[in-house]
Amino acid sequence: MIAIDRETSAARIERDVETLAGPEYTTSSEAIRRYAYTEVYRNTLDYFTRALRDLGFEVREDPLGTLVAQNRPRGERVFGIGSHCDSNRNGGKYDGTLGVVTALEVCRLNAEHGLGLPLRLISFLEEEGSGFGQMLLGSRIVAQRVTEDDLRERFRAIDDGRSFWEHAAEAGYEPERWREAIHVLDDLSGWIECHIEQARVLQDTGNRIGVVNAIAGYVHGDLWIEGRADHAGATPMGFRLDPGPVVAEVVLELERLALAAGKGTVGTVGEIEVEPGLINVVPARARLSLDVRGVDEESFRGVARDAVAFAKEAARRRGLTATYRQRQTLPATPMDGRIVAALEEAAGATGEPFMTMPSGAAHDTMCVADHAPTAMVFVPCRDGISHSPLEEARPADAALAAEIVLNAVHALV
Amino acid sequence: MIAIDRETSAARIERDVETLAGPEYTTSSEAIRRYAYTEVYRNTLDYFTRALRDLGFEVREDPLGTLVAQNRPRGERVFGIGSHCDSNRNGGKYDGTLGVVTALEVCRLNAEHGLGLPLRLISFLEEEGSGFGQMLLGSRIVAQRVTEDDLRERFRAIDDGRSFWEHAAEAGYEPERWREAIHVLDDLSGWIECHIEQARVLQDTGNRIGVVNAIAGYVHGDLWIEGRADHAGATPMGFRLDPGPVVAEVVLELERLALAAGKGTVGTVGEIEVEPGLINVVPARARLSLDVRGVDEESFRGVARDAVAFAKEAARRRGLTATYRQRQTLPATPMDGRIVAALEEAAGATGEPFMTMPSGAAHDTMCVADHAPTAMVFVPCRDGISHSPLEEARPADAALAAEIVLNAVHALV
Repeated sequence: MIAIDRETSAARIERDVETLAGPEYTTSSEAIRRYAYTEVYRNTLDYFTRALRDLGFEVREDPLGTLVAQNRPRGERVFGIGSHCDSNRNGGKYDGTLGVVTALEVCRLNAEHGLGLPLRLISFLEEEGSGFGQMLLGSRIVAQRVTEDDLRERFRAIDDGRSFWEHAAEAGYEPERWREAIHVLDDLSGWIECHIEQARVLQDTGNRIGVVNAIAGYVHGDLWIEGRADHAGATPMGFRLDPGPVVAEVVLELERLALAAGKGTVGTVGEIEVEPGLINVVPARARLSLDVRGVDEESFRGVARDAVAFAKEAARRRGLTATYRQRQTLPATPMDGRIVAALEEAAGATGEPFMTMPSGAAHDTMCVADHAPTAMVFVPCRDGISHSPLEEARPADAALAAEIVLNAVHALV
Repeated sequence: MIAIDRETSAARIERDVETLAGPEYTTSSEAIRRYAYTEVYRNTLDYFTRALRDLGFEVREDPLGTLVAQNRPRGERVFGIGSHCDSNRNGGKYDGTLGVVTALEVCRLNAEHGLGLPLRLISFLEEEGSGFGQMLLGSRIVAQRVTEDDLRERFRAIDDGRSFWEHAAEAGYEPERWREAIHVLDDLSGWIECHIEQARVLQDTGNRIGVVNAIAGYVHGDLWIEGRADHAGATPMGFRLDPGPVVAEVVLELERLALAAGKGTVGTVGEIEVEPGLINVVPARARLSLDVRGVDEESFRGVARDAVAFAKEAARRRGLTATYRQRQTLPATPMDGRIVAALEEAAGATGEPFMTMPSGAAHDTMCVADHAPTAMVFVPCRDGISHSPLEEARPADAALAAEIVLNAVHALV
């Protein structure tokens, strides 16, 4: 058990986080807004590059801009740590960035304590989708979970509609070499990502650390309910084809199904749009988004399937139609038992309260898990707030996480 | 019983309607878009002014632009007919305009048949609220249902945010004389407005004419449900304060309450907004609009009251809060029994199918009814579509309406 000076680590982590919240590192004065191929993103990569080179790491970027730094010659086995340093458009200081900063602190501690652990720090590109509307984009490219057509044509910048490919080339990268990004994961004996929890379970249960044993899979899709616009005053109730009550029934049924499924399955309608959206017009149509997640593959996929079937039937009963289109889906990702056990042991040794838990949110680690054994460590964030300038996490908790990761890697390699 | 040449009347009505759908009379090439103080609105008033002067009418405009034309010297008793000639922003050719055109046809028939009926044609300003977001604005000004502060400050142009007052003055009117608009209704022995039904009751029951015996009153308001934004993946179902299910319960309860109230009471949620409106975020808050109407004052007000109380209780049960703000309300307006009877008799004499019915939609006639006995005549519109470029009504039905109005006025004066 390596005991670290947690106060010093917390101070260094805080300094990194606060520096990266400065005006050179965000395009917004109200929030952290940082995404691929912007100048502020470049500055952020440069910040980590300088800090890692100071520790003797060799730092490079893959053909699309994923930052890869290691303290061993290429080809040797290394243990991966890291996260992403892009942000939600209306983001805070901690989501992603705290994970890279904590990984950097692990690299510093490794040097200070003379442990000689073989480490690779990775900072993934575009986890939040703020640049191109695609979640986990960088790690999906690394894991080859995209197609060349996606990169050349389908994925387009939110700001100007131009393709990912064009933007990458313009930033000096080599998109035509995107398949080589897979080598980011070469020679990894394992991977641990540290991240803020993005929910309130740790806070509300009084734990300072969460050891993640599975990442929820999810189904994202949209339901369109097609009815008929009518004058809200002049159309008797019996003459209507109003999508509103169908939407209402689906929202309540999704909640019921998720609760009934248990096993941490969750279902959310985050978007509801009615058209034309006028107080005095019975809506013609409505769209609602479905987000269904869970660590139990059967349970969450069953909830999504049942909710869609219910919507079609509820619409039919009222003389309307419902159509469904899936946006995206990822399977649940179990974490590696050996790494989870090493983290639990290291966490237990600190004497601080921790719990083992699933991650409901998606993370780059899902893509890393295709190619290496993985796990994650969560630290609490105040009131579960993330994707907001109000996001807040404690550097002291991140320092504790750094100690736990350091010890786990030490035990594993 | 005066029998008219319905084909000739239908042709003239069609010509007027089609002319007023031309490019000089709408600011949109996709729809009829015509509202106060625009050049196309000015052209429309000029069109009616020319046609009425040709019939020997004295034509003037009140201090804010309501068109008033009559075939008797001021001070003599006259019977009022007319409607409005502004349109919804995404409007069709018939809503409002067909009523003014049909009134013009009644004036023509009066002259052709040498009946000498004392008539006043009125075309109200801004019924649709397309210019300043205020329904029935012109007739509410005439009926003095607004305050000077409304006109000077509160009512602002959708296009540029400047006040109604400024726009009226710029168009050459005299807003400081707005109180004199009440004289538009002086000396009226009665009033009949012809309008498209804006619903599908006439079409679906096979009637060509609706004699309106009451106009529904309404309550317009908004409910805000305040919850808490959380990560849709990472927040277990039991940790949420999601406004979505509360919205859903309210939508279904409003439907249940309106059906239970009967007496033609209707309730509509035409607007639903959730914030932040992202697929992967449990919404923080939601807003839904309430539109509750009916001809039975107790019934529709009771439904609105009960829906709001239900929303507050449904929110409270889930640990959220609901607040309500009324936007606007108007009482139900019974039509005048004598005018309704005269219209029914005239309609019966035509041999064509007609029905007596309430109007679920609000009309300028509600404001006229403060000062004169009133009734309305509806003609069918295809599939109940209005406030849309797809709006369609038959000139032949409008000609039938002109015959009925002519005969009713003849019997009444």
